[in-house]
Amino acid sequence: MFQAKGEKHWIIPDGFIPPDSSGSLTSHESVCVLNTSSEEALLRFTIFFEDREPMEDMMHVVPARRTKHIRTSSLQKNGAGIPVGVPYAIEVKSDIPVIVQYSRLDSTQAENALMSTMAFPLKSK
Amino acid sequence: MFQAKGEKHWIIPDGFIPPDSSGSLTSHESVCVLNTSSEEALLRFTIFFEDREPMEDMMHVVPARRTKHIRTSSLQKNGAGIPVGVPYAIEVKSDIPVIVQYSRLDSTQAENALMSTMAFPLKSK
Amino acid sequence: MFQAKGEKHWIIPDGFIPPDSSGSLTSHESVCVLNTSSEEALLRFTIFFEDREPMEDMMHVVPARRTKHIRTSSLQKNGAGIPVGVPYAIEVKSDIPVIVQYSRLDSTQAENALMSTMAFPLKSK
Amino acid sequence: MFQAKGEKHWIIPDGFIPPDSSGSLTSHESVCVLNTSSEEALLRFTIFFEDREPMEDMMHVVPARRTKHIRTSSLQKNGAGIPVGVPYAIEVKSDIPVIVQYSRLDSTQAENALMSTMAFPLKSK
Repeated sequence: MFQAKGEKHWIIPDGFIPPDSSGSLTSHESVCVLNTSSEEALLRFTIFFEDREPMEDMMHVVPARRTKHIRTSSLQKNGAGIPVGVPYAIEVKSDIPVIVQYSRLDSTQAENALMSTMAFPLKSK
Repeated sequence: MFQAKGEKHWIIPDGFIPPDSSGSLTSHESVCVLNTSSEEALLRFTIFFEDREPMEDMMHVVPARRTKHIRTSSLQKNGAGIPVGVPYAIEVKSDIPVIVQYSRLDSTQAENALMSTMAFPLKSK
Repeated sequence: MFQAKGEKHWIIPDGFIPPDSSGSLTSHESVCVLNTSSEEALLRFTIFFEDREPMEDMMHVVPARRTKHIRTSSLQKNGAGIPVGVPYAIEVKSDIPVIVQYSRLDSTQAENALMSTMAFPLKSK
Repeated sequence: MFQAKGEKHWIIPDGFIPPDSSGSLTSHESVCVLNTSSEEALLRFTIFFEDREPMEDMMHVVPARRTKHIRTSSLQKNGAGIPVGVPYAIEVKSDIPVIVQYSRLDSTQAENALMSTMAFPLKSK
């Protein structure tokens, strides 16, 4: 049995899906999650905006002893996804501890730009 | 009622507003803040320089359950903003816990460059 | 005698070896490790995937009072390396405390893209 | 009187001074330090390499209530600086708490690449 490692609650304040792509790669963001444990992790995403109510309870599963690099454009709730070209923020809650990193590839111009950071862990008290 | 999460005091040592832009996007920095709570957050920015006194008490509001991606070029104090092309550092104090990330888009050249990092949280003691 | 500093267990959820390179630099990732101590550090890597079993126990040594910028493409287990163009995650365990940072250079397009973040430390309890 | 904030000991495992520049900006790294206090901070850098002894005791001052964005190429010890094109790691010790971020601009190609991360704080015990 492998143990779950990390935290159950993570925040990424700077979300943004670039509306344009050029060159050979498509602009996208990934929420990269590692589940080190022998049990499946159930993730619950909340998306916060600048000017409207949050989108809540988008679910995603990370199998035991697997990573998932989740495209934010793939997250859906009742058929609706995150709008492109709009500043937003991401909250990830997991039923077991996981580790979360956020990366963005921007190919608005033909040459790519990359950024990455660990999500901010909210310690359970 | 949703609870405030994060920290009340954050630091970003590497601030710099690129003076030049080219291509389809404008060079800029964003201080991205998430307020998870049911109450409004009042932010107080202090800007530190290499060779002059700090600019203090630039204020900004983040509404309840909202994110704000604050362009540093929008911060004002008595009509004065942060000068471009000058190294500086950012201190963010909030009256309730929030989460803060810093990102920069540099389009000095036509093709973009991106960087991002979580701000450094100063734990309240 | 210099003391070991940092943590013994680090996680990098967003691993990816870009399959293509162009321009004057080659796409690559580096796991950058600092061993501040007077003793050698023995690292043990586990690589997690989205759709297959982890690759375990790839070993690497960081000599006393040295840094190593380890190309992920150099990690081997029984003659097999990490496949390119596949999302994965990295776990680093060390027998003594070290500090770990992850960086990626993507030269899929002729102009480079860079990203970097500290690995996430799992505190020993 | 303003209080010193942050930590006294910081690590950056991924140091590298790009040997080449092109376009309108010069490749460089900056160690960005904020001193929030009313007293001057005295920094002591140690540079670690992959294959030779560390360079120790490069000193730098950050005045009270100021930031310094220190080019790594400006650090000197007995007239010798950090060699370019060589992987290295950075240790920063300060006599009072400060906050440290690391950024690199790579203009090996004409279009720039940027990366940034907070340095890793070693908590005093």
